[in-house]
Amino acid sequence: MSEPHANARAGDLAFLSGPRGHSLTVKLTPGERVQSMHGVIQHEDIIGREWGTQISTHLGTIFTILQPALDDLLRDIERASQVIYPKDIGYILLNLGVGPGARVIEAGTGSGALTVALAHTVGEHGHVYSYETRDKAQALARQNLQHLGLDARVTLHLRDIGEGFFEQNIPAIFLDLPNPEDYLAQVRAALQPGGFFGCILPTTNQVSKALEALKQHAFGFVEVSELMHRYYKASAGRLRPADTMVAHTGFLIFARRLAEGLHAER
Amino acid sequence: MSEPHANARAGDLAFLSGPRGHSLTVKLTPGERVQSMHGVIQHEDIIGREWGTQISTHLGTIFTILQPALDDLLRDIERASQVIYPKDIGYILLNLGVGPGARVIEAGTGSGALTVALAHTVGEHGHVYSYETRDKAQALARQNLQHLGLDARVTLHLRDIGEGFFEQNIPAIFLDLPNPEDYLAQVRAALQPGGFFGCILPTTNQVSKALEALKQHAFGFVEVSELMHRYYKASAGRLRPADTMVAHTGFLIFARRLAEGLHAER
Amino acid sequence: MSEPHANARAGDLAFLSGPRGHSLTVKLTPGERVQSMHGVIQHEDIIGREWGTQISTHLGTIFTILQPALDDLLRDIERASQVIYPKDIGYILLNLGVGPGARVIEAGTGSGALTVALAHTVGEHGHVYSYETRDKAQALARQNLQHLGLDARVTLHLRDIGEGFFEQNIPAIFLDLPNPEDYLAQVRAALQPGGFFGCILPTTNQVSKALEALKQHAFGFVEVSELMHRYYKASAGRLRPADTMVAHTGFLIFARRLAEGLHAER
Amino acid sequence: MSEPHANARAGDLAFLSGPRGHSLTVKLTPGERVQSMHGVIQHEDIIGREWGTQISTHLGTIFTILQPALDDLLRDIERASQVIYPKDIGYILLNLGVGPGARVIEAGTGSGALTVALAHTVGEHGHVYSYETRDKAQALARQNLQHLGLDARVTLHLRDIGEGFFEQNIPAIFLDLPNPEDYLAQVRAALQPGGFFGCILPTTNQVSKALEALKQHAFGFVEVSELMHRYYKASAGRLRPADTMVAHTGFLIFARRLAEGLHAER
Repeated sequence: MSEPHANARAGDLAFLSGPRGHSLTVKLTPGERVQSMHGVIQHEDIIGREWGTQISTHLGTIFTILQPALDDLLRDIERASQVIYPKDIGYILLNLGVGPGARVIEAGTGSGALTVALAHTVGEHGHVYSYETRDKAQALARQNLQHLGLDARVTLHLRDIGEGFFEQNIPAIFLDLPNPEDYLAQVRAALQPGGFFGCILPTTNQVSKALEALKQHAFGFVEVSELMHRYYKASAGRLRPADTMVAHTGFLIFARRLAEGLHAER
Repeated sequence: MSEPHANARAGDLAFLSGPRGHSLTVKLTPGERVQSMHGVIQHEDIIGREWGTQISTHLGTIFTILQPALDDLLRDIERASQVIYPKDIGYILLNLGVGPGARVIEAGTGSGALTVALAHTVGEHGHVYSYETRDKAQALARQNLQHLGLDARVTLHLRDIGEGFFEQNIPAIFLDLPNPEDYLAQVRAALQPGGFFGCILPTTNQVSKALEALKQHAFGFVEVSELMHRYYKASAGRLRPADTMVAHTGFLIFARRLAEGLHAER
Repeated sequence: MSEPHANARAGDLAFLSGPRGHSLTVKLTPGERVQSMHGVIQHEDIIGREWGTQISTHLGTIFTILQPALDDLLRDIERASQVIYPKDIGYILLNLGVGPGARVIEAGTGSGALTVALAHTVGEHGHVYSYETRDKAQALARQNLQHLGLDARVTLHLRDIGEGFFEQNIPAIFLDLPNPEDYLAQVRAALQPGGFFGCILPTTNQVSKALEALKQHAFGFVEVSELMHRYYKASAGRLRPADTMVAHTGFLIFARRLAEGLHAER
Repeated sequence: MSEPHANARAGDLAFLSGPRGHSLTVKLTPGERVQSMHGVIQHEDIIGREWGTQISTHLGTIFTILQPALDDLLRDIERASQVIYPKDIGYILLNLGVGPGARVIEAGTGSGALTVALAHTVGEHGHVYSYETRDKAQALARQNLQHLGLDARVTLHLRDIGEGFFEQNIPAIFLDLPNPEDYLAQVRAALQPGGFFGCILPTTNQVSKALEALKQHAFGFVEVSELMHRYYKASAGRLRPADTMVAHTGFLIFARRLAEGLHAER
């Protein structure tokens, strides 16, 4: 994820968008070539070109070249497994108070979609600590982070957080696990006083359990919400919502660590 | 917006949350005091305290003290005027590809809510260029940015963007104006090849006009969507959506600058 | 609720719509008059007029006169207490298989909004049996039904349904009570084989309890859903959703009575 | 659509629900048999059985038998073509003031889903006048109505409504056509003073055109809305919304015919 610039350079990630939604992301490397069902493109034919222009395969199929957006990269990761959606990620980043230079913990790592978004957002002066118990998932996340050049900003722990976090005094912790209620003591131990907690849960039963536990562990300013994202057909003369949409990804819970014994509400 | 830390320090912004939703944000300054209908708190009684603890006014009313989240600060700004909502801001940041070190243009500045979010996200090595024609709005935005210590990251221009932007080769531009279709030539002139464009519009008629103009000005990968944000009552035993919700803030449009003459769709 | 016709007649319900959303419904009676903050209208000045025309009070304020829609009447009842919303009522009627000539049970009666809709829908050859334990609520419902001339189609029982329903072999039963799971044995005893069951519940905890009980009592084809109703500003040139909306009324559950021991799913 | 009763009779419509969502609706006729990929069931083996019980094919596959709900029948019709959804139909019936004994006009007939719902709701003493220009669509609708025994309540006209409606002084008219703005003079000519008008339109551009025309033709109390219907997984211990949902069917517009020259708003 290099800085945005006007012309494609060696080492850049390039997003190639072809006919009928066919797209792929490649790292531009002199001497390599893109193979697809639509034909071949030499990386060297892309390097030096202006972003937003078009290029043809040897079979004459046209692809448009762009620097990928974070959103495009997340969608690529998304295809590999059940991950957190872009609509939720933007809101999560905002509600965890995460910005350049921030330190943040997440568990579990999964395929690394949120890890990528966090690493992007904390920048080179921040750091992400990400916990996972399944080594295969961790390996996939590591690969995704390396591919995007974000691995130096992330420490990947292979560890059950029931045994506690290694870090202390961290400003923000996010759990993407089915049972956050089982880890709130560990979260308190690692979280700064007043720090930000968040989690995402698919079922209402899980939300009820998490709410009960948050109360018992002196978290306050608890907020539960969900985001429904509806796309429209982008036609000036026939503007209308798309026929179908994602109805549910998860319920988002955010809270603040208060001093023991407090239960303040917003 | 200082780094998160465990104890309140002089110079910090402090969010004080009292009974029945009464809250306020102050910059902690030795010698000053908070006056409210619930009584007085000396800033010096807050400084040094752990975040997430409680403090009493001279009348015995209890307030909880926290470092404000970006979301809290945006809500404060929001009260002053019609601004972009947090639910939309997170998604806008993600879709403009904005992160640490980024340069980005927005117009109009308004009361500066999105300006604050952008300045927070680009960090001290990035920069925001924000255009506004009404000097009163600009003054309010400047005040909000100074209050949050973000003014060094933002250049506020008092200028009609119909006359063009001062900057060139900028990776991302966002317009919060009723008629983006009138400024797309200027946007192209300032935007990097392949760069990110976004806007927010309340009515479907405006969306139709913008879509028509985006096509004529060779923007591609156009996406139109809306986010519906539904809060829940955070009660473990009586979990249910809130009674009412915001039904609409605006339709979000995102697009990429393509080379002249192209109309690629995602 | 007389048949729709072209001109206002003595005995008709008339909906009078005045300035700034001020409206009222009256039964047209020679010799009576409408008193409002906007002045006086004689009923005799309305009788004989075409529906959809306008009439002036003695102070010169203009009112438009219409035969009330069922929806208008339900909104009037709605103001008096927490009732089932029109958006839900239409879907409930459809899913209970209720039409002209049908017999249907509901509990509790409440202020009678759903009772009115059911009585309207079953017509003069059908019948509604409505149970309530609070005599004040029942009295209000009776008054609403009489006002609309629908009381002959409804039997109002003052009885705790825990003691069972008086009727048997009824094709459809709807419960608007907080704890439907406590009455499913009674529902089975009164409901026709294969008959329609429905209920509305505000919290997810209640829905979980009801689902568990429906399974135990051999109800199948269980459907849980919610309807979100979003109004638009009806402006041709500035079309957009309203600013706020009702976020939640209740979760709707529908099921069919199966033979003992069966758990078929749709 | 015979009256609900406890046991299956010859002549009844029977809804047979088998494994993995496989279902079909048949009219019970002595001597006939149901053929499916799961085996054969003799109609005579169903006749006399209690609804809500189960029956086995000659191959041992189990089907549950029920009297179909109107909703089930509409879903069957729905499969054949683009029709109005149940979520919208309930609300349409309520807002047109349609009940037992009512007379109502609709255009176009399409495959007859709304026609069926209207005919069911007006009962044997009401009547539906339905206009269509395509004879194939009309033939399909006629077949659907006959299959359900509702054809005596419906007059099917093969006619372009631009030439006007045959009926006059009708209390309610619903248009399911792409260009209702072209027929409002004809609607006024057929509609009772104060009568109910409704239409459904997929795009915002169409809504804007219809709103403009309604104003010009002295319709008032105009309401524009949409219904979003979200299903839940009916699991007591894992309650959550379904993964995907229908995002859009159409915008619903309702209005009342006022006297010429009036523009009253609710």
